[in-house]
Amino acid sequence: MLQAIHEFRLSTRGRGLYEFTDQVDHWISEQGFKDGLLTLHVRHTSASLLIQENADPDVRRDLEKFFARLVPDGDPLFVHTAEGDDDMPAHIRTALTAVNLSIPVSRGQLGLGTWQGIYLWEHRLAPHHRTIIAHFIGNGITS
Amino acid sequence: MLQAIHEFRLSTRGRGLYEFTDQVDHWISEQGFKDGLLTLHVRHTSASLLIQENADPDVRRDLEKFFARLVPDGDPLFVHTAEGDDDMPAHIRTALTAVNLSIPVSRGQLGLGTWQGIYLWEHRLAPHHRTIIAHFIGNGITS
Amino acid sequence: MLQAIHEFRLSTRGRGLYEFTDQVDHWISEQGFKDGLLTLHVRHTSASLLIQENADPDVRRDLEKFFARLVPDGDPLFVHTAEGDDDMPAHIRTALTAVNLSIPVSRGQLGLGTWQGIYLWEHRLAPHHRTIIAHFIGNGITS
Repeated sequence: MLQAIHEFRLSTRGRGLYEFTDQVDHWISEQGFKDGLLTLHVRHTSASLLIQENADPDVRRDLEKFFARLVPDGDPLFVHTAEGDDDMPAHIRTALTAVNLSIPVSRGQLGLGTWQGIYLWEHRLAPHHRTIIAHFIGNGITS
Repeated sequence: MLQAIHEFRLSTRGRGLYEFTDQVDHWISEQGFKDGLLTLHVRHTSASLLIQENADPDVRRDLEKFFARLVPDGDPLFVHTAEGDDDMPAHIRTALTAVNLSIPVSRGQLGLGTWQGIYLWEHRLAPHHRTIIAHFIGNGITS
Repeated sequence: MLQAIHEFRLSTRGRGLYEFTDQVDHWISEQGFKDGLLTLHVRHTSASLLIQENADPDVRRDLEKFFARLVPDGDPLFVHTAEGDDDMPAHIRTALTAVNLSIPVSRGQLGLGTWQGIYLWEHRLAPHHRTIIAHFIGNGITS
């Protein structure tokens, strides 16, 4: 049984969904992980992790439109506006989604479905640098 | 320390909550798992996993009614309607809930509370076949 | 490789966010955990777990106000009101957030970001006793 920790660093161009499935796949194959559990944790309170459809880009656009309507920027309800109209909505969108994900790995492959991709969801309007910690525990090809 | 992977396959009759706690319990006892961590991951983008009350069925009906109002089928906001009026709402309901769950196992028992059950939440109106990957890592009765 | 299970018991004073990051940190250092994966699971269907900003208390107040507006107590939509106007809203707020969290631990430190704290979110108006199961798997300082 082995375990490993890694940091993924993503630069965003502002609000939106950024797929990084390939980077996770690459880490798994590079490290020779075989069977186990992969956990991702985003170290921020205004960005989240999402597993969603990676085929039609309209899905991401519609997700974005729905969340923008559900949690409107500049809503007078909010007192915490230190960093602007999108500050508190970013925290709420994070609370409504997830900051960590755990995905089984089998024979070196993430257990994602055919249409599932792993996304960082940037909820702030401005570009940010985001850090995601990855943890793997299980067996390697050579262990 | 041991680990194991299993697939649960559930057939749904359309939108609604389908409890499968018994099937998870059965796998744990059949395999003789004792102490460890159980992770479930649903391999779809229009169905999710939910831990909720398994006593009064009105809870599930009210959950369904609330989500149907929050994310209305046929909302003109949505562009992605390739598979019908419930297509995009199913993706959004999935984003608002969870696609994976991790539950500690102690002395062969899932660490669920008295009223907690594990559900597959089918968000599409039509019946579907859904796959959930289960992963266990920990000790077994014989190890 | 070692693993351990622990129960955190929190008494709430009614609806609101209760940080318990310090108690989790204390358990990790007391047990001498070094590198691994920490999982928390709340054993209730009307309280949830949230990782959110632990700096400005207005963030928690705005979160509370937003969720009170999104899922109103006493909404005539709900049939399940056995325990009062806040009964069904508590279940829905739990479904919209999370009941378990998995966080990597590295060199004895939880992999939280600078502003992230771990909260129990009590969704019922009345005070409650809540139980959270913690599981750790990984290496210890002495192993």
